[in-house]
Amino acid sequence: MTFTAKQIADFLKGEIIGNPDIEVDNFAKIEEGKPRTIAFLSNPKYTQYIYETKADIVLVNNDFVADKPISATLIKVPDAYAALATLLDMVNSLNPRKTGIEEMSFVSPTAKLGDNVYVGAFAYIGENVKIGENVKIYPQAYIGENAKIGNNVTIHAGVKIYHNCVIGDNCILHSGVVIGADGFGYSQQEGIYHKIQQIGNVVLEENVEVGANTTIDRAVLGSTIIRKGVKLDNLIQIAHNCDIGQHTVMAAQVGVAGSTKIGESCVFGGQVGIGGHITIGSKSQIGAQSGIISNTAENSAVMGSPAYPIKNYFKSSIIIPKLPDMYRQINALEKEINELKKQLSKE
Amino acid sequence: MTFTAKQIADFLKGEIIGNPDIEVDNFAKIEEGKPRTIAFLSNPKYTQYIYETKADIVLVNNDFVADKPISATLIKVPDAYAALATLLDMVNSLNPRKTGIEEMSFVSPTAKLGDNVYVGAFAYIGENVKIGENVKIYPQAYIGENAKIGNNVTIHAGVKIYHNCVIGDNCILHSGVVIGADGFGYSQQEGIYHKIQQIGNVVLEENVEVGANTTIDRAVLGSTIIRKGVKLDNLIQIAHNCDIGQHTVMAAQVGVAGSTKIGESCVFGGQVGIGGHITIGSKSQIGAQSGIISNTAENSAVMGSPAYPIKNYFKSSIIIPKLPDMYRQINALEKEINELKKQLSKE
Amino acid sequence: MTFTAKQIADFLKGEIIGNPDIEVDNFAKIEEGKPRTIAFLSNPKYTQYIYETKADIVLVNNDFVADKPISATLIKVPDAYAALATLLDMVNSLNPRKTGIEEMSFVSPTAKLGDNVYVGAFAYIGENVKIGENVKIYPQAYIGENAKIGNNVTIHAGVKIYHNCVIGDNCILHSGVVIGADGFGYSQQEGIYHKIQQIGNVVLEENVEVGANTTIDRAVLGSTIIRKGVKLDNLIQIAHNCDIGQHTVMAAQVGVAGSTKIGESCVFGGQVGIGGHITIGSKSQIGAQSGIISNTAENSAVMGSPAYPIKNYFKSSIIIPKLPDMYRQINALEKEINELKKQLSKE
Repeated sequence: MTFTAKQIADFLKGEIIGNPDIEVDNFAKIEEGKPRTIAFLSNPKYTQYIYETKADIVLVNNDFVADKPISATLIKVPDAYAALATLLDMVNSLNPRKTGIEEMSFVSPTAKLGDNVYVGAFAYIGENVKIGENVKIYPQAYIGENAKIGNNVTIHAGVKIYHNCVIGDNCILHSGVVIGADGFGYSQQEGIYHKIQQIGNVVLEENVEVGANTTIDRAVLGSTIIRKGVKLDNLIQIAHNCDIGQHTVMAAQVGVAGSTKIGESCVFGGQVGIGGHITIGSKSQIGAQSGIISNTAENSAVMGSPAYPIKNYFKSSIIIPKLPDMYRQINALEKEINELKKQLSKE
Repeated sequence: MTFTAKQIADFLKGEIIGNPDIEVDNFAKIEEGKPRTIAFLSNPKYTQYIYETKADIVLVNNDFVADKPISATLIKVPDAYAALATLLDMVNSLNPRKTGIEEMSFVSPTAKLGDNVYVGAFAYIGENVKIGENVKIYPQAYIGENAKIGNNVTIHAGVKIYHNCVIGDNCILHSGVVIGADGFGYSQQEGIYHKIQQIGNVVLEENVEVGANTTIDRAVLGSTIIRKGVKLDNLIQIAHNCDIGQHTVMAAQVGVAGSTKIGESCVFGGQVGIGGHITIGSKSQIGAQSGIISNTAENSAVMGSPAYPIKNYFKSSIIIPKLPDMYRQINALEKEINELKKQLSKE
Repeated sequence: MTFTAKQIADFLKGEIIGNPDIEVDNFAKIEEGKPRTIAFLSNPKYTQYIYETKADIVLVNNDFVADKPISATLIKVPDAYAALATLLDMVNSLNPRKTGIEEMSFVSPTAKLGDNVYVGAFAYIGENVKIGENVKIYPQAYIGENAKIGNNVTIHAGVKIYHNCVIGDNCILHSGVVIGADGFGYSQQEGIYHKIQQIGNVVLEENVEVGANTTIDRAVLGSTIIRKGVKLDNLIQIAHNCDIGQHTVMAAQVGVAGSTKIGESCVFGGQVGIGGHITIGSKSQIGAQSGIISNTAENSAVMGSPAYPIKNYFKSSIIIPKLPDMYRQINALEKEINELKKQLSKE
């Protein structure tokens, strides 16, 4: 995979400053650039590196102005980061596609597979499973009976999808993901917990990506729903009967308790915990490690455990280390006031 | 699976109000009820839905009194939620049972399997493993050498059980669970960590359920013990040599450090962290996201990181956003007092 | 595996006090000692148990002085805990070594395996994978194409290693570990998140141990690097492009966001969260559940969310439950001051 600056600039509709014939065959971070690599400059923090990088080509924003000589050939584009993403997509699409059913996989005779499907060795596809076109199922994945998988889905090695669950088009599930394990539901009688059978399922709409070892539990009745465009990072817990609104993103290790409904286009920092039976308004931003114990309005920006408006959060956080001093100060003031009162009463 | 209201009421020993011959063949949440479904009303928050639900049958508590007409047939029972659980159990028991050893599984010739065992494809059962009756081992599960599995155990797809571990009767382990990985033990010499071999095991007593991707480490010596009736949600970490008391329940993403002993019938919210070598008294309640760094008495109810009594926790939490104001207020008061002192000294 | 006190003392170069011919064939904790076991006493908290233990041999530190009669034979060594570790290593090394390629595994014809390698059933070794000597790959593990595995590596059941990743000599990866899943990278356009292809890899240097269900994401470009001697506990998340310095240890459920660089010899408590693009200085100590949102100097000792110096943390933590009282106190003081001001102005 060798490309010239000219080929890349033509593909990205960018402008070349330098040598159009210079060739690259790999990508690099600008601070780690080597000959025959292409790098990019988007975050201004990294501008210093463009003057010393050994990358042969650097993608830059149209408004970039050099104030020192640069040895690399530049390609100017409206958005260097988006151009990088486009280029990575193109290169990725050139990789040979895996297809076919590897030996030593198990495909139930009652399962229906679309065209151009890859099934890796030791993958298990249960009874009455339906799988769309262009689906890749890597080794050791498990798809329980009656599950439905859309088109263009990628199921990485070792993913487990329980019976009756539904995965929409273009979803990507990373290794260790568990979809549809039983929700955590018990009725307690005399101190003993009795399991409530969880007979619902999980539905992922289209374009959902789920990070490694994330777990999404099946509903007790009905469905746990992850709506289109949602992106979940690694090691996240979504409990039974949750409903995660479209285009919401969650960083790693977030936990959402049962029956909670999260709006569209929310952004969650890492390690956030959300209580059960709560509603989070659309376009909310929840800071890392927050704990949410009550409903949150649309467009909220909150942080803390329990959470409160983020604009106050950092102000309060600065005070917390000063609490011992404040405590002493208050007690000193109280003494002084008592002293003053004594003085006044004497007069 | 079609049942009439009369059949269901007879099974539950409930009282019918409406049409005894109406038929249902599925469950639904009351707010999503459809024809031919049965719903339930337990939480009073949902009472409004009973007047508009399209479910044909609704389970209600004996003390439910309608104040508007209801189109659904009602079945009155002492506890609608418990009745639902009973009904779900019954329906679940009608599902065909998986049995038999699927081809492409690995069962060591030295392993002993009880009657009526299911072993899925790509499951691995190591040397000298003993497995009881009516056990279901789903595809891609791993059971290391010398492990013992009791009767009526369900081991979902991809569970990993290391050598020598013991799983009691009626336990349920969900996909991604890891039982018996090495505890996190090192001796440090000159800045380098040397592994301490972890030669103990993990023992799960009977009726334990373990959620997806939860990890329970083997003891360095002796056993990490999860006692009867414990219920662990997803993505929980139990470190080596812990002892979790019977009928204790933990919500997702809790972490318990090494050698900690937790009493009976405790309730843990999500994302709690417990330090090592700590004792938590029986019947303690630990609020979500708490951090516990010292022993906790029986019947404690604590929250916060570090944790303190929950009755104080919410009171303090209300104050935290006011800290910047308090800080300013204290400094203002100090100035005023100094002013007063000046005034008084002048007099 | 039966040893006499004399054999053990000779091996450890220790001194026997008691019967050199007494035999043991197992280890025990001192408080659970049984006949024919060897225990150890290192932590002074457990000293009481040495007078009543039924273990036949106890390893003690050279400076141990009994103040009551002890029935066990003692072996005195400079460091009883290190001696235990040595003894456990020796016993562990006597276990029969697994070798050979089990049937029903998949090894690509283009993969290269060193001498004395074990490959368990249902393990998958992809194209062009290179594996060193004395490597153990347990059942159901997955090694993607072009990955490189060093010598003496142990890959437990079900580990998933994506394509192009590199695992150094002597590494140990526990069940459920995922190495090289895609980093969480998207470009957002008009509220929709578009995936950035993650074409980098993960590199583990030598002597790294990774706990069960921990996830380490591949870099977008370049490598996510875990340097030599690092020990990661269970359920940890390391995001793309992180660099974890040598001999750093992290307790369970820590999360590190993207592009963060952590120095050498740091110690992380459990459930810590570190923001992205942050630098943590070498030899830092980060208390459990801390949240780090800015760079941290070398030799820092911090705790809290957001974190501040640990020496202040516990002082502030004591004050937090007193905040409601402080709040009332301040307001009372304010009233008193206003009262004093009135009095003064009247005079």
